[in-house]
Amino acid sequence: MLSKFFSARSVAIIGASHKHGKIGNVILNNFLDGKYKGKVFLVNSSVKKIHEKRCYASVLEIKDKIDLAVIAIPAEAVVKAAEECGKAGIKNLIIISAGFRESGRADLESRLKGILRKYGMRAIGPNCLGVFDGHTHLDTLFLPRYRLRRPEKGNMAFVCQSGAVGSAILDYATEHGYGFSKFISYGNAMDVDESDLIEFLGNDRSTKVICVYLEGAKDGKKLLSTLRKVSKKKPIVAIKGGKSEQGNKAAMSHTGSLAGSAAVYSGVFKQANVIEAQGLEEMFEYAAILDSEIRPKGNRVQVITNGGGYGILSTDAVIENNLRMAKLSKQSLDQLKRKMPGILTENPMDLLGDADDQRYQTALNIAIKDKNVDIILLIALYQTPLLTPKMVDIISRAKMRHKKPIVVVSTGGDFTEKLTERLEEKGVLTYTFPHNAVRAIKKLVDYYGR
Amino acid sequence: MLSKFFSARSVAIIGASHKHGKIGNVILNNFLDGKYKGKVFLVNSSVKKIHEKRCYASVLEIKDKIDLAVIAIPAEAVVKAAEECGKAGIKNLIIISAGFRESGRADLESRLKGILRKYGMRAIGPNCLGVFDGHTHLDTLFLPRYRLRRPEKGNMAFVCQSGAVGSAILDYATEHGYGFSKFISYGNAMDVDESDLIEFLGNDRSTKVICVYLEGAKDGKKLLSTLRKVSKKKPIVAIKGGKSEQGNKAAMSHTGSLAGSAAVYSGVFKQANVIEAQGLEEMFEYAAILDSEIRPKGNRVQVITNGGGYGILSTDAVIENNLRMAKLSKQSLDQLKRKMPGILTENPMDLLGDADDQRYQTALNIAIKDKNVDIILLIALYQTPLLTPKMVDIISRAKMRHKKPIVVVSTGGDFTEKLTERLEEKGVLTYTFPHNAVRAIKKLVDYYGR
Repeated sequence: MLSKFFSARSVAIIGASHKHGKIGNVILNNFLDGKYKGKVFLVNSSVKKIHEKRCYASVLEIKDKIDLAVIAIPAEAVVKAAEECGKAGIKNLIIISAGFRESGRADLESRLKGILRKYGMRAIGPNCLGVFDGHTHLDTLFLPRYRLRRPEKGNMAFVCQSGAVGSAILDYATEHGYGFSKFISYGNAMDVDESDLIEFLGNDRSTKVICVYLEGAKDGKKLLSTLRKVSKKKPIVAIKGGKSEQGNKAAMSHTGSLAGSAAVYSGVFKQANVIEAQGLEEMFEYAAILDSEIRPKGNRVQVITNGGGYGILSTDAVIENNLRMAKLSKQSLDQLKRKMPGILTENPMDLLGDADDQRYQTALNIAIKDKNVDIILLIALYQTPLLTPKMVDIISRAKMRHKKPIVVVSTGGDFTEKLTERLEEKGVLTYTFPHNAVRAIKKLVDYYGR
Repeated sequence: MLSKFFSARSVAIIGASHKHGKIGNVILNNFLDGKYKGKVFLVNSSVKKIHEKRCYASVLEIKDKIDLAVIAIPAEAVVKAAEECGKAGIKNLIIISAGFRESGRADLESRLKGILRKYGMRAIGPNCLGVFDGHTHLDTLFLPRYRLRRPEKGNMAFVCQSGAVGSAILDYATEHGYGFSKFISYGNAMDVDESDLIEFLGNDRSTKVICVYLEGAKDGKKLLSTLRKVSKKKPIVAIKGGKSEQGNKAAMSHTGSLAGSAAVYSGVFKQANVIEAQGLEEMFEYAAILDSEIRPKGNRVQVITNGGGYGILSTDAVIENNLRMAKLSKQSLDQLKRKMPGILTENPMDLLGDADDQRYQTALNIAIKDKNVDIILLIALYQTPLLTPKMVDIISRAKMRHKKPIVVVSTGGDFTEKLTERLEEKGVLTYTFPHNAVRAIKKLVDYYGR
């Protein structure tokens, strides 16, 4: 039944408004200007028409079947609107409105809950941004698109208690080319909570990795068992806000939910094989590798580089992260000597500052076929004069042909960024620095090696 | 005497070439096309003119006084060229050429050293990129500008054993708006070594922070005493390549210098009050805050945010990093209540999702004047509709007027990036995520609190 939150074919916007800057106006515009293909009905008792579209005084006036109501009206009016939805046979509500438990009005939430039970409805919110679906383009986020860009469709889902964290991250991710299947800001979790959403995403075909930002959970037992179950199907990357005592206090005042200590959550994550990120940057780094890479056969990393220093820093990172430096087979070593007699180091394999595309191709072909190599960390520093944009094809083709994770590291300015973007478009994962790439590789290995 | 490496008024390019792609051609073009104001003399015995400029067969033919020779010819020919420089009275050499100790030709280096002694010359290199000076625009980096952008002038110096690390980082830093006083890739350190350079930069007025990428040092004692001495004058951020045993082995084969274990180096850094970075990203984060911020009076951080979740994550990071959450004075609290009665939390001070510029201005003014606040961490999530570009002025003016570090965190896409760039141009330091901002604040506090 949660699927209707994302793939509703008809939506009623309760609180649709023509007033610029109003939440109900932003949501309406996002529905009308966007790529959403379903029917949209406007509900607002004080006007007859908005943008030449009829406004209904109540959902009860609408004759079509409505899959989802998005509610963006003052808190006091929400209970009545919800009751009307119930009577109209609408089963899914996204309640954007704030002014409930988080503002000391737990009473309003109790009444709402009663109505949900009475009519067998499910609700996301209140006090939330709601939902963005990368595939159906259903989008209830009340932030204008020029400030918060919407991501392309992809395989990452992001479940986020906090609306601000969610929107900032979504915007950042879009800028950096990440694709999303679904984004959910669930706010007070009056009815649908993080566990329900994670369970749903576990069964969602368009989702490959689940990211979760949590401040607290009302039902820790339910969360643990959900995480345990779902992490067997697909990777979950989680970040816990309010781990310190003071952060915890702030979290309680933020969403009004019990936050729980750092140790408890870290324990839960560990038990449930959830990948814990220490910061938002890490969350992306981990989600990206779990999204784009296949299961590595083991933890042996082959480093290929045109910068000696980067080879060294990568080696350090491999060892620090308890991964292993691969040892090329005798056959590979023979090939290496024959084809590139000038290359003296095997791992990190330093192709030297005068390396050209051909040298990379040769090295990559040797390493990718070697059974002693599980993962390739390929460093391409494009400042050196002999590397050309052909590198994009060389790397992406190797990746397509062989079932082995390849992670690329490139650091630089606009020339580098252009090549990196083209690589990313071809589905090759890139990081800016070796340290970040390797700690992500570690999570990939750990997830599949559990 | 090292100053001539950066502010030479006349340079001889030995190996200047008209052949596209040759190192001596790239260096020459960079001198002629760039902003370097000094005289440039071309030395190449096989041609008479390049770009209508006279080519000398030897430096001995040049009658003007030459401050610096840049040598980019095959290793075998370098000894003779250096001897001629000695005879011509040139005291500073940057030897770009590779093919010395790192390729098993320690003998060539010994002969070169003899010549340096004989004529009282100093040399950077061999096997290096040489020098870039952000102020004089002296630039011996043999990588074309379209691949490796040159940074604006600034206060960061970067001393880098590895040319590839150096150039990638310089390129990245330029893209991200960092300014540099001096960059030195010193390669084999046959004569001038990291300690000499760090000591020189310690006395260099245009340098405020020194970044060092080290793989090894020939003289550990000299390094320790130099670091100790210089870190009293200005902050040094260092990263050690080859900390793991395997990384260490790779480092030895890279520059042929003794690398030394992780423990030894971490110990040296600690003793010398050097800020150790665990990765290149951290190095920048730390250098940036030490470059742009003044000494904080203590470790009490006031968090101001329009996103509850970011406030919580910031609080967690403050506590994890052993900093303290500031407690506003009674006077500030009274002001806060009077001016913004809706704001219920003091630190993190959550200005809520509907915060406008004015609310930020009020909050910032209260916090910046409060004696209980040492550092302000200001989170501005521009996805919310009421924040305008005026925020740039509000923050930068507050920073100018009051002597208190302000660090800004903003996460997002192009709208956010534009505002962030404008803030940075006005000298306000910004980070993308709270975690990264707070660990940098920790280094600022530690450096000045030593």
